[in-house]
Amino acid sequence: MPAYEKFCSKLAMGIKASDIRELLALIKHRRDVISFAGGIPDPKLFPKSELADISREVILKYGDEALQYSETKGLIELREILSDFMRRVKGIQADPEDILVSTGSQQALDIVARTLIDPGDVVVTENPSYLAAIGSFKMAGARLVGVEMDDNGMDTQKLEEKLKALKKNGERVKFIYTIPVGHNPAGTSLTLDRKKHILELAEEHDVLIVEDDPYSYIIYEDGVDSTSLKSMDKYDRVIYLSTVSKILAPGLRIGWIVSPRDLTRRFELVKQYLDLHSPTLTQFIVAEAIKKGLIDRMVKVATPYYKSKRDAMLSAMEDYLPDYAHFTRPIGGLFVFVWVNKEGFNTTKMLETAITKYKIAYVPGANFFVDGTGFNTMRINFSYPSHDEIYEGVRRLARLIKGE
Amino acid sequence: MPAYEKFCSKLAMGIKASDIRELLALIKHRRDVISFAGGIPDPKLFPKSELADISREVILKYGDEALQYSETKGLIELREILSDFMRRVKGIQADPEDILVSTGSQQALDIVARTLIDPGDVVVTENPSYLAAIGSFKMAGARLVGVEMDDNGMDTQKLEEKLKALKKNGERVKFIYTIPVGHNPAGTSLTLDRKKHILELAEEHDVLIVEDDPYSYIIYEDGVDSTSLKSMDKYDRVIYLSTVSKILAPGLRIGWIVSPRDLTRRFELVKQYLDLHSPTLTQFIVAEAIKKGLIDRMVKVATPYYKSKRDAMLSAMEDYLPDYAHFTRPIGGLFVFVWVNKEGFNTTKMLETAITKYKIAYVPGANFFVDGTGFNTMRINFSYPSHDEIYEGVRRLARLIKGE
Repeated sequence: MPAYEKFCSKLAMGIKASDIRELLALIKHRRDVISFAGGIPDPKLFPKSELADISREVILKYGDEALQYSETKGLIELREILSDFMRRVKGIQADPEDILVSTGSQQALDIVARTLIDPGDVVVTENPSYLAAIGSFKMAGARLVGVEMDDNGMDTQKLEEKLKALKKNGERVKFIYTIPVGHNPAGTSLTLDRKKHILELAEEHDVLIVEDDPYSYIIYEDGVDSTSLKSMDKYDRVIYLSTVSKILAPGLRIGWIVSPRDLTRRFELVKQYLDLHSPTLTQFIVAEAIKKGLIDRMVKVATPYYKSKRDAMLSAMEDYLPDYAHFTRPIGGLFVFVWVNKEGFNTTKMLETAITKYKIAYVPGANFFVDGTGFNTMRINFSYPSHDEIYEGVRRLARLIKGE
Repeated sequence: MPAYEKFCSKLAMGIKASDIRELLALIKHRRDVISFAGGIPDPKLFPKSELADISREVILKYGDEALQYSETKGLIELREILSDFMRRVKGIQADPEDILVSTGSQQALDIVARTLIDPGDVVVTENPSYLAAIGSFKMAGARLVGVEMDDNGMDTQKLEEKLKALKKNGERVKFIYTIPVGHNPAGTSLTLDRKKHILELAEEHDVLIVEDDPYSYIIYEDGVDSTSLKSMDKYDRVIYLSTVSKILAPGLRIGWIVSPRDLTRRFELVKQYLDLHSPTLTQFIVAEAIKKGLIDRMVKVATPYYKSKRDAMLSAMEDYLPDYAHFTRPIGGLFVFVWVNKEGFNTTKMLETAITKYKIAYVPGANFFVDGTGFNTMRINFSYPSHDEIYEGVRRLARLIKGE
């Protein structure tokens, strides 16, 4: 048997298997551990019988096409429906020709990374940022520069400083990556002013913006801003990514990119070598589901459902966590982020004890930071656990934090 | 509006939009043109009503999982079923842990490319070779070295010479890429002796083999060899790729890789940043379809069906094509390859005339050659056109070749 490592690319050897991932994989089958580590929708919300009927129907009715190879860009029917959907719900004007269907949002990130990033290029992200986006960008050779966040998301004054400093150093910045609403992992949302500021800065510094928006379709509070940067994109600098994973079902793996036409064409050329096209069948299913109002109905049901879980989480945290633990109050998304302001507190080192002794799991925040900090933070999911688990889990978490 | 080109990576700018693709896209809606340019299965063969029932059932029965996020490697149920399927049909011994489910075979090619190829590494391929594999390998920075083919596929004597010459030059060869049965585009299949020779050469020269096998499950002749290299892989050097695209339905986008465990782990780490996982729903559908014998039944039906189309194609070519046109006689796959031994004959330049004047389309062979040759060749598909179209189309093709 040959030694296989020598056949592997530098890129592949650069991806480390994560200990955390291994640890968290172990708890899957442990019923005694309450996990806040996931990031997945509650399957109770999946419209199973409707989707069962739709998938049967589309195969019977359109099987010749639904089971066949299809266009790299995505089915024109789906792109038209997505165009209409985004206009109606988010005020985003997108011609179907400016939309590319991707195999989940993750592929959209990879397509963007490979189309835009040359090794050594800088990508500016929130710090912390989404783990799998960081992974895709790094795999393309990006150097990541993180911008500090507060309870309103990325601090755009700091963003401005970073962009200036990068320009001064002659660095090539390709884009600013942001999750404007219901940030993963930080649980924050940008204010309207900050969104405007980011758009102005992108124009001023001649960089693009990649807006990752899986969450803004489900908002837990009235009167808060959840405008998409793309809908305000007067400079044509925003590449918008979204997905049906949180508003219908992730197992269909359907996401999409809205971008200026010149980029959409490039994305399409790259995608043909990635997977030729996304599954025709699940594209047909999503198109039918939107047409039949299934997503609108799911959003109506999911909003109060997740809101009540979020409320339970916040209320449990208020009740149980010590004062030196700060947490965000998300208006969307699936996560609360916790900062523990206690000397030497290290959530990465502590995870094994958390699981074995306190029977509680979370994702150590350091994983999400691009600058090697964040060891006193953790990401807490509230979409998956039940109300009881939320209360009991936070009680255990409080004991862990206090070292009781 | 910014100039977007400056934001694009070298990799993306290196992918050229193909004129041929554009030309061929145009004929989609022209009913007067007979197209041999496709490479897609005949949708008449799709088991639509069975798949409609299966997809409804899996959502109703397993919806909580089938619509949810799932493992990057692929559903364990599907991997177990694929392991059993390959053992039974192809004599391939693959532990489910050595299988990774991909979003079609195209993604498998991309995963292999990104995991193994560093820019400048050599990949040895048949010349001509599969267009989208060439594309994936090039995108990873590979330098492609082609090996001459004859009616029995890759000439392994020439392969040996190339490997020696490459070694002498100190080139780093990562793998030999081969489509052993029903070659796309060449329509050839390797003899058993050549397969043995390739395996020996891989061991001797310490390189891997990537065996791309979408076609060997449907064989048109008795008594011919369609053994998989993987089933003879005593040196553990073969990475085996296959797909349900030709034996069930391409629109599901389910392929898979069998590889030595150390590589499977690397493939998994890379895939998590490509699309997280392949669609859970279509994985469930494929697992159910294999379990219910749907693929076995489809192979039974598809074999005589495609065989009769192949026979029609070969008989029409014998009847109509001039002596100086040589063509292959495929025992599997979807293509016949034609060499026209006529001074200055250029199928690339001729395509537009073929479409507009002769109302016939094909893929110019030069696209498949890695060394800039092959202008006197063309790829002819027989799986999609009807018998009548095959006869009439070849008649037109003959007139085109003879310049009548």
